[in-house]
Amino acid sequence: MTDLLWPGDARAGDLFTDERVVAAMISVESAWLAARGCPAALSDIADISGLFAEGGGNPVIPLVKILRAENSSVAEHLHTGLTSQDVLDTALVLCLRSITNKTIQNLDQQVYALASLADRHRGTRMAARTLTQHAIPTTFGLKAANWLNAVLDAREVLSSCAEVPVQIGGAAGTLAAPAAVAGSPSAALDLVAATARLLGLPARPPWHTTRAPFTRVADALVTCTDAWGKIANDVLLASRPEVGELSEPVEEGRGGSSAMPNKQNPVLSVLIRRAALAAPPLAATMHLAAAEAIDERPDGSWHVEWATLRTLSRRTVVAASQTTELVSGLVVNADRMATTLAAAYPGIDAERLKTGGEQPYLGANDELIDAALARAEGKPC
Amino acid sequence: MTDLLWPGDARAGDLFTDERVVAAMISVESAWLAARGCPAALSDIADISGLFAEGGGNPVIPLVKILRAENSSVAEHLHTGLTSQDVLDTALVLCLRSITNKTIQNLDQQVYALASLADRHRGTRMAARTLTQHAIPTTFGLKAANWLNAVLDAREVLSSCAEVPVQIGGAAGTLAAPAAVAGSPSAALDLVAATARLLGLPARPPWHTTRAPFTRVADALVTCTDAWGKIANDVLLASRPEVGELSEPVEEGRGGSSAMPNKQNPVLSVLIRRAALAAPPLAATMHLAAAEAIDERPDGSWHVEWATLRTLSRRTVVAASQTTELVSGLVVNADRMATTLAAAYPGIDAERLKTGGEQPYLGANDELIDAALARAEGKPC
Amino acid sequence: MTDLLWPGDARAGDLFTDERVVAAMISVESAWLAARGCPAALSDIADISGLFAEGGGNPVIPLVKILRAENSSVAEHLHTGLTSQDVLDTALVLCLRSITNKTIQNLDQQVYALASLADRHRGTRMAARTLTQHAIPTTFGLKAANWLNAVLDAREVLSSCAEVPVQIGGAAGTLAAPAAVAGSPSAALDLVAATARLLGLPARPPWHTTRAPFTRVADALVTCTDAWGKIANDVLLASRPEVGELSEPVEEGRGGSSAMPNKQNPVLSVLIRRAALAAPPLAATMHLAAAEAIDERPDGSWHVEWATLRTLSRRTVVAASQTTELVSGLVVNADRMATTLAAAYPGIDAERLKTGGEQPYLGANDELIDAALARAEGKPC
Amino acid sequence: MTDLLWPGDARAGDLFTDERVVAAMISVESAWLAARGCPAALSDIADISGLFAEGGGNPVIPLVKILRAENSSVAEHLHTGLTSQDVLDTALVLCLRSITNKTIQNLDQQVYALASLADRHRGTRMAARTLTQHAIPTTFGLKAANWLNAVLDAREVLSSCAEVPVQIGGAAGTLAAPAAVAGSPSAALDLVAATARLLGLPARPPWHTTRAPFTRVADALVTCTDAWGKIANDVLLASRPEVGELSEPVEEGRGGSSAMPNKQNPVLSVLIRRAALAAPPLAATMHLAAAEAIDERPDGSWHVEWATLRTLSRRTVVAASQTTELVSGLVVNADRMATTLAAAYPGIDAERLKTGGEQPYLGANDELIDAALARAEGKPC
Repeated sequence: MTDLLWPGDARAGDLFTDERVVAAMISVESAWLAARGCPAALSDIADISGLFAEGGGNPVIPLVKILRAENSSVAEHLHTGLTSQDVLDTALVLCLRSITNKTIQNLDQQVYALASLADRHRGTRMAARTLTQHAIPTTFGLKAANWLNAVLDAREVLSSCAEVPVQIGGAAGTLAAPAAVAGSPSAALDLVAATARLLGLPARPPWHTTRAPFTRVADALVTCTDAWGKIANDVLLASRPEVGELSEPVEEGRGGSSAMPNKQNPVLSVLIRRAALAAPPLAATMHLAAAEAIDERPDGSWHVEWATLRTLSRRTVVAASQTTELVSGLVVNADRMATTLAAAYPGIDAERLKTGGEQPYLGANDELIDAALARAEGKPC
Repeated sequence: MTDLLWPGDARAGDLFTDERVVAAMISVESAWLAARGCPAALSDIADISGLFAEGGGNPVIPLVKILRAENSSVAEHLHTGLTSQDVLDTALVLCLRSITNKTIQNLDQQVYALASLADRHRGTRMAARTLTQHAIPTTFGLKAANWLNAVLDAREVLSSCAEVPVQIGGAAGTLAAPAAVAGSPSAALDLVAATARLLGLPARPPWHTTRAPFTRVADALVTCTDAWGKIANDVLLASRPEVGELSEPVEEGRGGSSAMPNKQNPVLSVLIRRAALAAPPLAATMHLAAAEAIDERPDGSWHVEWATLRTLSRRTVVAASQTTELVSGLVVNADRMATTLAAAYPGIDAERLKTGGEQPYLGANDELIDAALARAEGKPC
Repeated sequence: MTDLLWPGDARAGDLFTDERVVAAMISVESAWLAARGCPAALSDIADISGLFAEGGGNPVIPLVKILRAENSSVAEHLHTGLTSQDVLDTALVLCLRSITNKTIQNLDQQVYALASLADRHRGTRMAARTLTQHAIPTTFGLKAANWLNAVLDAREVLSSCAEVPVQIGGAAGTLAAPAAVAGSPSAALDLVAATARLLGLPARPPWHTTRAPFTRVADALVTCTDAWGKIANDVLLASRPEVGELSEPVEEGRGGSSAMPNKQNPVLSVLIRRAALAAPPLAATMHLAAAEAIDERPDGSWHVEWATLRTLSRRTVVAASQTTELVSGLVVNADRMATTLAAAYPGIDAERLKTGGEQPYLGANDELIDAALARAEGKPC
Repeated sequence: MTDLLWPGDARAGDLFTDERVVAAMISVESAWLAARGCPAALSDIADISGLFAEGGGNPVIPLVKILRAENSSVAEHLHTGLTSQDVLDTALVLCLRSITNKTIQNLDQQVYALASLADRHRGTRMAARTLTQHAIPTTFGLKAANWLNAVLDAREVLSSCAEVPVQIGGAAGTLAAPAAVAGSPSAALDLVAATARLLGLPARPPWHTTRAPFTRVADALVTCTDAWGKIANDVLLASRPEVGELSEPVEEGRGGSSAMPNKQNPVLSVLIRRAALAAPPLAATMHLAAAEAIDERPDGSWHVEWATLRTLSRRTVVAASQTTELVSGLVVNADRMATTLAAAYPGIDAERLKTGGEQPYLGANDELIDAALARAEGKPC
C-alpha cells in the first residue's frame, strides 16, 4: 500500500495497511482463543480480497467465516463471545500502537536534533519577524528552541494517550456472550483482561460508544502535525531566495523540477506543510463520529472512523519521518541572517531605543533556550 | 485498489485508482505530443512503483523520465513545454470526469426510482415528524418527492460544474515554454486548445492558483452526499423495529451479524450515512487548499488537493451506487405507516382542529408531488 | 453588533444582526398577512430580549406571542398557517440577500480595480515563484489577471445561487395549514407565491429538509474568501521587507504596533487571510447540517445552520470590503520587482535556454491578460 | 451578549463576552504594573466601542491608548515591556479559565446525576440496539453507566489541560523589553512569574507560536460535547413516540410549537445535539491556526483563534448546562422499556440460545455499572 497521490507515503511502510489490519484482527481472534484456553496458530489469510465484501458492513464477518473454515479444530470457539466491533476496534488499536510508537521515536529524534540546533545557534542572531515585518533581533537558537517546545508539547500530549485500551464487550457491550462462554460475569472480565494482556494492551470496560480513547489519539496526532507545520512554514519562508537563511538537507534526486533545471525546491517542507493543512479536519471527523454515537453501536458513525483514523495515522508517520530528516540535516546560513539583521537597522532597533535596553537586545535568549533544553532532558524547568 | 476500511469501495471499481491516474497522465502527455504534430503511441507503464518516489514532490517527474526512456523517438518533444502541474492537474480532471459521469448516471437512476416512489405512494398516508415528534399527517409519496427534490438539486449543481477544463500553463502559467516550442504566443494558445480538444475537455487560461474549478466539483459532490445522507437517515429510522415503515432491499449475504443471528442490519443506509458524515470536511480541505494558494504554484496547498479529491470522488461514487440500489429496491410498509398514523390521533389532529382544515388534512400533497415529478421530467414547475 | 474578537467586523454594519433577523421575521409575518388580504403595519419589537428564550428552541415562538399581543386586530391571522421554520428560514434568506448583494457589489469593485492593475502592469516584469523558488519571469499584470480570474470565478459562482427562494411549507411541509386558511391547495400555493412576491423572493416548494439552497450560497461565499485569501497571501509575502514588491494602501492609524514604533503591518491582508482560513469549515458545517436532516424537520441539524450561516455571512462581507480596499489602493513597487528579477538571472533563465525561447520569455502574457480583461467585461474569451 | 441564533446562549451569561475580554485585558495590564512595583487601580472602560477599531489588527492597541490617557500617573509603565499578543493571549487564558471551571462544575453535577441513574436502573431491563436493530437485552443502568464513562473521560481530558499558562514574551518572545524594564533577563523572568502569580496562572516560556496550550483545551471542550452529543442522541431517539422510553424534564414554556398544540419537543436534546455537531470543526480551526503559525507572530492564523475559541467556549458552557439539566431530570419509562424488550423476543434471544447463556442474559451488567460508579468516586476500577 502506497499512495501515488501522497508522495512520501512509502515512509509509513506497511504500518496500518489492509494486510496489517487483517493480521491485527487475526491477532485479536488468536488472543481470545488463547485466553479461553484453546490456543491455536491461526493460519494467515493469503488472499484478503474476500474481506472486502460489503454485505456485512465490516470485514470481520467474512474474516471469521474464512478463519473457521481454515481452522476447523477451533472453529467452535473462534470468535465466540465476541462481536465484530470488538475485533475491528481492537485491531485498530493494535495498528494505532505501531503508529504512535513510530511517531514517538521520531519525536525523540527531533528533540535531539532541535536541542542541538538551539544550543549551537544561541548566538546566531537574526531578525525576528511578526506579522511579516521585522520586529526586533532574536537568535536562530531561540527559534529552534520554540520549535523544540512545540515538539515537546506534542510528545507530551501523545504520550499521555498512546496506550489505547482493548475494546471487548460482546454484542452490545454487556459482556453477555463472554460471560456465557466463560461461565460467569467475573470470568468474562478475566477473559477480557487476559486477552488484553496477551495483546499487551490496557484493559477497560467496553467503549463501543464512548470514543474518547480514539479522539484523544487523533487530537494528539494533529498536535504533532501542528508542531511540524510551524517548522515547515518557517523553513519554506527561509528557503526563499529573498530570505535565504535556511535550506533543506540536499539529497540526490530531491527538489528537482520537470521543467526548470534551475530549481531546488524545499520538498520536505512542502510535503510536511501539506500534511499539517489536511490533518485537523480528519481529527474533527473522529470527534463527529464520537458525537454521533447512538444506541449500543451506531449506524454509520462507527464506520466513518476506520479509514479516517488510518489516513490520519499513516500521514502522521510520513510527516514525522520527513520532519526528522528536515531538522536533522537543516542547513543554517548564519551569514545571511546577519546580513538581513544588519540591513534591518535602524528600524529594528526602535523598541530598544524606546525601552532603553542594551545591545544586542536579546532579552532572555539564553535563559529561554536553556529552559527548552532542560525540558528536553526531562529536567524541571 | 480497494479499501478494506471503507466497505463498498469496490463499487468505485478502478475509477481514479493510482493506475488510472498514471494512465490519465500518459493521456495528457500523448495529447500534447499529438497536438504538437508528433503523435506517438506511448507505451504503458507496467510497473508504476517507480512513480512513488518522493524526491520530486509529485509523480510527474519520474513518469517523464520513464516515458522518455521508453519512447526515445519522441523523447525530445515529450513533456517539453509542460510543467508537472499541467500534467497532474489535467490528469486529475480526466479522472474527475469519470467520477462525475458515473455520479450523474446514478443520480438519473435515482430520479427515476424516486419519481416512481413519489407517484406510487401519493396516497400512502403516514405521520409527519418534526423534532422527533408526530406533527401532522403526510404521505410517503411526498417524503419521496422531497428526496427527489434534493437529488434534483444535487444533479443540477453537479451538472453545472462537471465540465472541468484543461489546465496547461507551463512552468509559471505564462505559457512561455509552450510559446517557445510552438513558435508564438498565439500558437501556444492553439496548442493548448488542441490538446484540450483531443482530451475532450474545455479550454481555459491556466488556473494553477485559481482553484474554483476543483472546489466547485468538490462542493457538488458533497451536495450529492448531503441528499443521500437525508435519505439514509430516514431509512435508518424507518428500519427500526419500533417504526418499521421502510426496509432495505434484501440481498443474500447482506445485513447479517457476526454474533446475532436475529439481526438484519440496514447496511446500505449505514454505509451511505457514513459517507455523508465524512464528506463535508474533505470539500473544506479543497477550499483551504484554494485559499492557501500563493505565488505561481503553492508550497503545499497544491499537494493537499490530490488525495483529498480522490478520496472524496471514490466515496461519492460508492455512495451513489449504494443509494441507487437503496431507493430502487426500497420496501415500503404502508400498513405500518397507517397503524402509526392512526395511533397518533387525536394529537396529530390538533393543528387541523385549530385551523379548521378538512380531513385528511394533506394540504398540497398532490400538487407538491406533481411539481417534483414535473421537475424530474425537466418540465417547468 | 460588533465583535471585539473579529477586528473589522464593523464593516458588516448591521447586516444579519439579531435586530435585522428580527426585522426580517416580522417582514415575513407581514408579507404573509398581506398576501392573505389582511395587511397590517406590524409594530416593531423595541426590546428583543424576550426572543432569546430557549424554551421553544427558536425565536419565532416568543416573537409570535409578542406580535399577537401588540397587533390584536390581526392577531387571529398572524402567523396562522405558518410554522416556525417557515418564518426563521425565510428571514435568514432575506438577511442572506443583503449579504450576497453587498458581496457582489464588492466583487464588482474588485473586478474594476484588478482589471486596471492587470492592464497597467502588463509590462511590469517580476520573478514568478513556484514552490517558493524563482521559476521564470512573469509580470505583475498577469498576477493581477490571475487574481481577477479568481474573483470572476467567485462572482460567477455566487451569482448563480444568490437568489435563495422563499421557504414556506407549514408544519410539515405539506402546506396543510396554508391550504386550510386559504381554502384549497392551489390557493395555498398562490398564497406562498404572493408572499414570495411581496418579499421579492423566488418561489419554490418547501425545502425544510432539502438544504441545497443554503449550502450553495455557503459554498459560494467560501469561494469568495478563497479568491481573496490567495490575494492576501501574495500581498503578505510581497510586503515582507526581504521582498518588498507590494505594499498595502497606507491609512492613518493602520498597521501600527503596541510595542514597536518601526512596524507597518499589512493589516488588511492579515485580516483577509484570517477569514479565508476560518471559512471552509463553516460551509462544511452547513453541509453536515444538510446531510444530517431527518424526518420533516430535523432534531438539531436545522438549529446548527442559523449562527453558522450568519458568522460566515458577516465575515465574508468584512473580508469583501477589506479586499476591495486592498486591491483598490495596492502600491506596486515595480523597481523592486525588476531588481529581484535581475538578481535571479542566470538561474531564472534556465528553462528559456533549454526550450530556445526568446527574451523576455513572457509567453502569452498579453493574451492571457487580455482574456481576463475580456472576461471582466463580459465578453466571450 | 446573547445570540438570538443560538438559543440557550444566555446560559453562558457574561462568560467570555466582549466586556469580559476587555476586563481580562485590563487585569493583565494591572498585574503587570503590580508585578513591576507600581500597582494602580486601573479605571474601567465605560465605553468599549473604541476598541473595535480595525487599524491595529487587535483591540490591545486602542485599549492601551485609552488606559494611558485615563491613568496618567502610571502611563509611562503601563504596558511597557509587553506586546499586544501578550495581553490578548493572557486575557483569552483568563476567560478560558472561567469557561473550564464552569464546565468542570457541570461535569461534576452530571457525574452525580448519571451515577445515580446507573445505580438506580441497574435492574431496568431494555433492548440493546446496534445498527438500529434490536440486539440483546441490556439495562438502562448500563446505558447510563456508559454515558457516565464518557463524561468521566471528558472530565479527565479537560482537567488535564485546564490550567492554561500565562503568555508573556514581549515583542518577539525574547523577553527583550521585559528585560530592559526589569533590569536583567532573570529579572524579566521573575516579572513574568510574578504577573502569572497575581493572575493565578501557571508560568511558561512564551508560546506566541507554540499553540498546544490552546489546542488542548479546544480538543477537551469538544471531547465534552462529544459525550453530551451521545446522550442527546439516545434521548432524542428514546423520546420518539414509537420508542417512548425516555423523556426530557418538563418545564413550563419548553418544547411547545408555534403551529402544533400537540407537540412536546425534546428541546434540550435538540440544542445539545446542535452543539455537538458544530463543535469539531471549531477545534479543527484552532489546530489549523496552530499549524499555520510562522515567524515570531503569524500573519492571520493568530487572529483566527480569538473568535473561534470564544464561540467554542460559550457553546460548550451552554451545552454543559443543558446536559446537566437533562440528565438531572431525565424521566425514565421503565414500563415502556420492558414492553419493547418483551416484544423483541424471540429474536433478541437468538444469541443467548447460540451461546447457551442463561436468562436474563445481562452478562456483566452489575460489574460494569459498579466499575463506572467506582470510577466516578475516584476509586481505582
